[in-house]
Amino acid sequence: MANLANRFGSNPILAPADLAPSAPGMRIECLLNPGVFRFSGKTWLLVRVAERPEQNPGITSLPIVGETGQIEILEFNNDDPKLDRDDPRVIRYDGREYLTTMSHLRLVSSTDGIHFEAEPDYGLLSGSGPLESYGIEDCRVAQIGDTYYLTYTQVSQHGVGVGLRTTQDWHTITEHGMMLPPHNKDCAIFDEVIGDKYYVLHRPSSPNLGGNYIWLAESPDLVHWGNHHCLVHSRPGMWDSARVGAGAAPIRTSEGWLEIYHGANHGHRYCLGAMLLHPEQPRRVIARSVEPIMEPVEPYEQQGFFGNVIFTNGHVVDGDVLTIYYGASDTVICGAQFSISQILDSLS
Amino acid sequence: MANLANRFGSNPILAPADLAPSAPGMRIECLLNPGVFRFSGKTWLLVRVAERPEQNPGITSLPIVGETGQIEILEFNNDDPKLDRDDPRVIRYDGREYLTTMSHLRLVSSTDGIHFEAEPDYGLLSGSGPLESYGIEDCRVAQIGDTYYLTYTQVSQHGVGVGLRTTQDWHTITEHGMMLPPHNKDCAIFDEVIGDKYYVLHRPSSPNLGGNYIWLAESPDLVHWGNHHCLVHSRPGMWDSARVGAGAAPIRTSEGWLEIYHGANHGHRYCLGAMLLHPEQPRRVIARSVEPIMEPVEPYEQQGFFGNVIFTNGHVVDGDVLTIYYGASDTVICGAQFSISQILDSLS
Repeated sequence: MANLANRFGSNPILAPADLAPSAPGMRIECLLNPGVFRFSGKTWLLVRVAERPEQNPGITSLPIVGETGQIEILEFNNDDPKLDRDDPRVIRYDGREYLTTMSHLRLVSSTDGIHFEAEPDYGLLSGSGPLESYGIEDCRVAQIGDTYYLTYTQVSQHGVGVGLRTTQDWHTITEHGMMLPPHNKDCAIFDEVIGDKYYVLHRPSSPNLGGNYIWLAESPDLVHWGNHHCLVHSRPGMWDSARVGAGAAPIRTSEGWLEIYHGANHGHRYCLGAMLLHPEQPRRVIARSVEPIMEPVEPYEQQGFFGNVIFTNGHVVDGDVLTIYYGASDTVICGAQFSISQILDSLS
Repeated sequence: MANLANRFGSNPILAPADLAPSAPGMRIECLLNPGVFRFSGKTWLLVRVAERPEQNPGITSLPIVGETGQIEILEFNNDDPKLDRDDPRVIRYDGREYLTTMSHLRLVSSTDGIHFEAEPDYGLLSGSGPLESYGIEDCRVAQIGDTYYLTYTQVSQHGVGVGLRTTQDWHTITEHGMMLPPHNKDCAIFDEVIGDKYYVLHRPSSPNLGGNYIWLAESPDLVHWGNHHCLVHSRPGMWDSARVGAGAAPIRTSEGWLEIYHGANHGHRYCLGAMLLHPEQPRRVIARSVEPIMEPVEPYEQQGFFGNVIFTNGHVVDGDVLTIYYGASDTVICGAQFSISQILDSLS
């Protein structure tokens, strides 16, 4: 087993109690899966913050964004036979599905990459419009020139798709709507053009014929996408048998594009692996981890809101050192470092 | 009940026996869901032809396109407990799904719009490459300027998505890959720009949170698509409770864009309805059929490979007369005429 991660000694580095709820009556249930970028001389995390209303006995309360953009609270009686609460993440009622929590994105920053503080001068990023009425989740941040491209999961009754926003200063943020239609998430833009095209990794899911696989698409402008191509499947019997999905932007190395991805088995155990794409022809998968490069083994990775999960969608690169930030057990934020050359060696 | 269709007296107008199989040992099982266009002074259908190998006793044989582009035959013993043949359209074996038939597209033409003949001077359109290894299906044909845009369903083990090909002369056909990723089908391009953008209707499907709904997307170039928006849902308790999907290109009328769409209930009964979109802002749904405008009532619409199905994805417009061509019971091709003004009246 190739466990190549050096975890931060101070893990977890952020927990729900470290941030203030977004509104009175709301409680932060989980911190998850941050996007990561450098800006203004510091390392920043765009943390997914999952909140739910304070719960009263016998009642399940959950938030949605209403027509007017305000948060509305839905309440269900726990004795109602139409209510299905088996999944901690999803409520089913009378054939319709709701999320138990609603997520927004919050900025925190650090000068050392380990100790992060809230950035109250910057607004939080919330769901906006009918395609984000159940919130926004798991944002990747790619920097191309002076512009940051935010690709994140939009959740609503209409489906789960990939939203795009852009910013240069993190104060003024422009919305570009849904860039990939349902069911899609885990979308990471390559932060360089290859040839004359932009590329993106994404993860559609199929109700039949197909699965939860990683795909590649092309664009002339980063807003409109086409020429989709299937890169890798989940692998029966292996650690990534049920689903795979890209992490953050692929890393340019001397051997090709190195992508850290997550894989889960049918027991919903999430590990990290790597794959290497051809430097000029990213459709060509050169290599892929047989064993995970990191598995959920620490107590904070095994127990929480949804245990046995490590999930990364953000990192920074300094020479051979790859520092990933990751969500553990869908509850806390952690960090770990890898040697890029060690990961490449594990693939050969 | 608003049944507004005047069926052709000669229905069905094309049946499997009317065309020759594409190769020795293959049998045409069904003719389905033609794209329709005018070219060279005639009306043309681009018919979906579903074939399967001649079946031997006790064995289920099915075709796929192999790595080299040649058709390969897979065989399963009917006694094998891993084999699931409950659905006439899909074979399940050991957790993997295959189609019982493989479809290609065939050109037929007519001078009167009723009597169609094969066009042997034109090649058939077959699956090509890894995303079409289970065939291609249900092509819409939009004409913009001198170019025909073919949007069709690509089927493979990687998933079900929308492919794009273009042609001007129906001899040289250019492939543009997958334009909408899985799970997606029922894709109809508007045959005019609105403002400065191209638009398309499409139908993603979600394994959870969402459903089989009709969406709208925008493009600068007809190849790359973004800014997806959900237009209409299936409607619980109604004739279109389980799934809805666009027919052919929307029809410009004085009141807006008229779209004929199909809806199915949970009993897989497929009917046709209409919706009206705002002429300049196609995101705005002005009206939608409460009752179907056409239902499967004729024997050839109720009995066949998959009965109780009428499905259209092609039409021609002459003044107030809308002539649709449609697949009936997934077996034969039929025609029917409507008055556009009567459909509009039924929506008001």
